[in-house]
Amino acid sequence: MAVDPLAPVAITAFNWVPPFAQGQVRDLRVRWALEEAGVDYAERLFDPREPRPETYLDEQPFDQVPAYREGDLRLFETGAIVLHLGGRCEALLPRGAAGRARTTAWAFAALNSVEPIFQQLASIDFFAGDAAWAAERRPQVEDLARTKLGRLDRRLEGRDWLEERFTAGDLLMATVLRILGHTDLVESFPHVAAYHQRCEARPAFGRALAAQHAAFID
Amino acid sequence: MAVDPLAPVAITAFNWVPPFAQGQVRDLRVRWALEEAGVDYAERLFDPREPRPETYLDEQPFDQVPAYREGDLRLFETGAIVLHLGGRCEALLPRGAAGRARTTAWAFAALNSVEPIFQQLASIDFFAGDAAWAAERRPQVEDLARTKLGRLDRRLEGRDWLEERFTAGDLLMATVLRILGHTDLVESFPHVAAYHQRCEARPAFGRALAAQHAAFID
Repeated sequence: MAVDPLAPVAITAFNWVPPFAQGQVRDLRVRWALEEAGVDYAERLFDPREPRPETYLDEQPFDQVPAYREGDLRLFETGAIVLHLGGRCEALLPRGAAGRARTTAWAFAALNSVEPIFQQLASIDFFAGDAAWAAERRPQVEDLARTKLGRLDRRLEGRDWLEERFTAGDLLMATVLRILGHTDLVESFPHVAAYHQRCEARPAFGRALAAQHAAFID
Repeated sequence: MAVDPLAPVAITAFNWVPPFAQGQVRDLRVRWALEEAGVDYAERLFDPREPRPETYLDEQPFDQVPAYREGDLRLFETGAIVLHLGGRCEALLPRGAAGRARTTAWAFAALNSVEPIFQQLASIDFFAGDAAWAAERRPQVEDLARTKLGRLDRRLEGRDWLEERFTAGDLLMATVLRILGHTDLVESFPHVAAYHQRCEARPAFGRALAAQHAAFID
């Protein structure tokens, strides 16, 4: 299948989420990458309180948002969509095998080495309620999250970005740091905190966040 | 930085792990991809009971194995290394933007949508001991793992591979399924179980598993 650089793009997202999830839903990553790339897109919005149609699993096998359409291409997984958009936007993905590989390394680092621990902490804080297991387990998960933040802090000492310049790896890492937004953990690591602000100061991020918010019915 | 297709390759791995971790350490994924690609490689082995040198963080920022060297290129994150090796091996990564994007989607699906839940279950089973939180939490995590397996089972009904043919996405997904090897969960999903056997029947997998094992001192 050829990829047409002018093919129309559409993403799925939600038309409502509770306040704690606003600015967290994963379509934010794809909206941000689309804004960096200057690509217009349409939205297909779902109400998260209703089941998606069974056929949605054919394009998003894990029943999550976002799913991505670009002409005949169907894609899922924000990491893959953002890297794919790098093909349209050198600001997201350096040209050449080595630059692409390094950017891809940080994309997986964000989504596999960092996000799962942060997500465990957020799940405890938002979904576990008063469960006894959560009170016992939470300090261990917070320690793991601090270890990850410490590693990132070391990497970011003396650097503006994870590599020599902003890439899709920073985009993904910044959205992963947002998962801890209900805590003061990121602020405890000065290089990470400054980096996070630097990422979110990009105009494309601001437009993406506004676009996600605009999709929510009040 | 240019990438030299003849540059020597080296990976880091462990020279010992406890029995439950044998066949699980993540260098298995990279060894498998190297075997699929027919690339010879050297090993740098660490004893996991000793701290790595502080400078190791410069090439593997999260202090994990494997790290990957190919001439001047330094890489980390198994997803990124396996996709990078796809540049040498069309069996891992179809040529063309659409095929590459679909393969990348399954790579992230394996490592972000599936692995974190399986890893939570394995962590409870191997590391939580008799902690009260683990006994209370485990049934919920098992339910989440079953949901993921059910989605995969639906995808694999009537298919040999996640896409039309074996790719790096299958390689990564198969190694993620191994994380549940101490349970009977995979066997409860017939399409997933057959798929997992199909993946591991590849000669390159067998050679990779033997190579990981050969690195362990008894």
